[in-house]
Amino acid sequence: MRASGPVPGGADRPVDGAERLARAALTGIVEPGDETGGRWLREHGPVELLRRLTAADPGAGEALSGASAKRLAGVRDRARGVDPARYLEAAAEVGGRLVCPGEEEWPSQLDDLGDARPVALWVRGAPRLRMWALRSVAVVGARACTPYGAHVAAALGAGLAERGWVVVSGAAYGIDGAAHRGVLAAGGATVAVLACGIDTVYPRGHAELIGRIAEQGLVVGELPPGSHPTPSRFVLRNRVIAALTRGTVVVEAEYRSGSLVTARGAQRLGRFTMGVPGPVTSGLSAGVHELLRGEGVLVTDAAEIVELVGEIGDLAPARRGPVLPRDLLDPVTARVLEALPAKVAVDTRSVAREAGTTGDEALARLYELHSLGFVERQGDNWQLASSAVHAAHVRRGGA
Amino acid sequence: MRASGPVPGGADRPVDGAERLARAALTGIVEPGDETGGRWLREHGPVELLRRLTAADPGAGEALSGASAKRLAGVRDRARGVDPARYLEAAAEVGGRLVCPGEEEWPSQLDDLGDARPVALWVRGAPRLRMWALRSVAVVGARACTPYGAHVAAALGAGLAERGWVVVSGAAYGIDGAAHRGVLAAGGATVAVLACGIDTVYPRGHAELIGRIAEQGLVVGELPPGSHPTPSRFVLRNRVIAALTRGTVVVEAEYRSGSLVTARGAQRLGRFTMGVPGPVTSGLSAGVHELLRGEGVLVTDAAEIVELVGEIGDLAPARRGPVLPRDLLDPVTARVLEALPAKVAVDTRSVAREAGTTGDEALARLYELHSLGFVERQGDNWQLASSAVHAAHVRRGGA
Repeated sequence: MRASGPVPGGADRPVDGAERLARAALTGIVEPGDETGGRWLREHGPVELLRRLTAADPGAGEALSGASAKRLAGVRDRARGVDPARYLEAAAEVGGRLVCPGEEEWPSQLDDLGDARPVALWVRGAPRLRMWALRSVAVVGARACTPYGAHVAAALGAGLAERGWVVVSGAAYGIDGAAHRGVLAAGGATVAVLACGIDTVYPRGHAELIGRIAEQGLVVGELPPGSHPTPSRFVLRNRVIAALTRGTVVVEAEYRSGSLVTARGAQRLGRFTMGVPGPVTSGLSAGVHELLRGEGVLVTDAAEIVELVGEIGDLAPARRGPVLPRDLLDPVTARVLEALPAKVAVDTRSVAREAGTTGDEALARLYELHSLGFVERQGDNWQLASSAVHAAHVRRGGA
Repeated sequence: MRASGPVPGGADRPVDGAERLARAALTGIVEPGDETGGRWLREHGPVELLRRLTAADPGAGEALSGASAKRLAGVRDRARGVDPARYLEAAAEVGGRLVCPGEEEWPSQLDDLGDARPVALWVRGAPRLRMWALRSVAVVGARACTPYGAHVAAALGAGLAERGWVVVSGAAYGIDGAAHRGVLAAGGATVAVLACGIDTVYPRGHAELIGRIAEQGLVVGELPPGSHPTPSRFVLRNRVIAALTRGTVVVEAEYRSGSLVTARGAQRLGRFTMGVPGPVTSGLSAGVHELLRGEGVLVTDAAEIVELVGEIGDLAPARRGPVLPRDLLDPVTARVLEALPAKVAVDTRSVAREAGTTGDEALARLYELHSLGFVERQGDNWQLASSAVHAAHVRRGGA
């Protein structure tokens, strides 16, 4: 994993307004995972790329390499209909924001995707994505799962949450939904990565679930507000889930299913690929078993997952004490940290009361502090990490 | 795997009568897997060892290394009660025989056990153990298995049989019994390795099953007729199952169960160790999953097992044509081979009629011919291997 990106902490350090606006527009022009578009972006920067794609003179696009005239015409056509200011407004209406590469909240592990890196991410929810992603695991699987699969996904979600890990999934029916619900039931932290706009509810039946995730966790997507999912967008969304997390656990998957694409993507990116076995008589475990006969690691519970993904010290700063000095924490996070008494574990509610903030906000900051190594979780309660009291060194370049 | 032992084929080439009688006696004196006893046997040979253990002068045993006086007294005590001629009679009464190391029927892969090698094997059934063991796989698992485990074990038994593989197990309740039954139902070849005498039925409820295996397959044990199983004998029996076969498949096993001992024994002997996954919510799959998180290979059906264990060409001569010239086949086997028409597949019954023998005898010989590469199985029928018609070379030292 590359250790690029700015030092975290402090207030946002936005890329300039013109670049943000250009990137907002480009999320509606460059399709997720389009490596040609990614290369243009790398070669010309967002502002210049947008200028070329929207210039009245069609020749302006000709300097863009590797695109057929037909394809370029299609992209230019899409570019004409895009209104980035409207995107930003629509995002704000649902409490969302745009997070761009290089900004403080950007999860720099997404840079591992190279030219397939998202142009930017649309994010809903109070927690900061970068911090949450530091200690996150993806739990994915079949939509039409069995009761066994749903049970296991929910148990893994809860178990990972109890161990202070953030669970990332796709908010789909079946395994995804069960994993998110397992986390929420345990009062934990979960991120839904959508294949549509963050203001768009898909699937419809998960409106309430996605709403709860946006309140207690994070809802993330590459596509601008108002975008709808397509089959290819589901597949390409999976690469973001794989890249964002330390590893991907497949709970149930048919032979050659989309969840396996996520898992193999994780493998290619140097993340851990894990699978939960099931009955060999179940077609919904056949894909997982295929994975486990290859590169996947068999896991049966949350403890085994954490044992595996927790091995890389780089991304698990909690194991070695805080990675940031206290005075680089943003004001709300610093207040939450100060709200923790010296030696006893307290529940989220009393932290929130003490810090003068809401329960959801306090929980978001506690998870962030957990990622940074300041606090530890004890069952449902939180306490100051013993190593956090005196530590005050900055570990530059960690991500 | 060592390629020691005599060239197979032809009539039995018995070790002399005195040695056979001494080994028969020693099967009742040296406990299975006793490496000290195995070393004495290697150092002094069976006749001299028996003489020292049964000599009236207690000092005769003192030349045996590494045994305490108390232990030696116990062994000498057992030696006094042993009547090898009676063992051989009792074995003959149930159609059994003694097979000694170095004899034509001895499966030389057992030599891999070193000083824990059985003193000899008591064998019931028409087929020749050495030939059957060439293409064999062990299927083992929990006694108190689930319906899922029983189903899978039976399906694997049948599937392996259909692919011409011999299935070895321990005739216990649960997985073992289901595997044997699956094979028998498919008209296949199965070997039961008992932790007691071959004339002793254990468990009682498997009297009919063990009887059928003795008729259609082989019942094998290290202990002389009349011996009863003990907990340690079950565990030590497992090493014979592991050593006899090309690999061991564990279907269901609790965490730290006896089946895992067999599987790990197989691993140490350079055999394949495989496991069939199940629900992570099932305690009866926990041991298998533990195995699969370590050295074990995940398998979900017979095809995957054969793909794995069939990789070593040495022990699968069928893949390369016959390993013996026809004129070294014993008379009954040669008749069965001649009973096969040139180009069509026929069923066992018509082979038996043509060869002038019983169906069970014909099946036993067909499996033997299959191991030797002369015949191929086509569903329930048998046909001459295309490579078998002209081949007439001897591959010496193969085992």
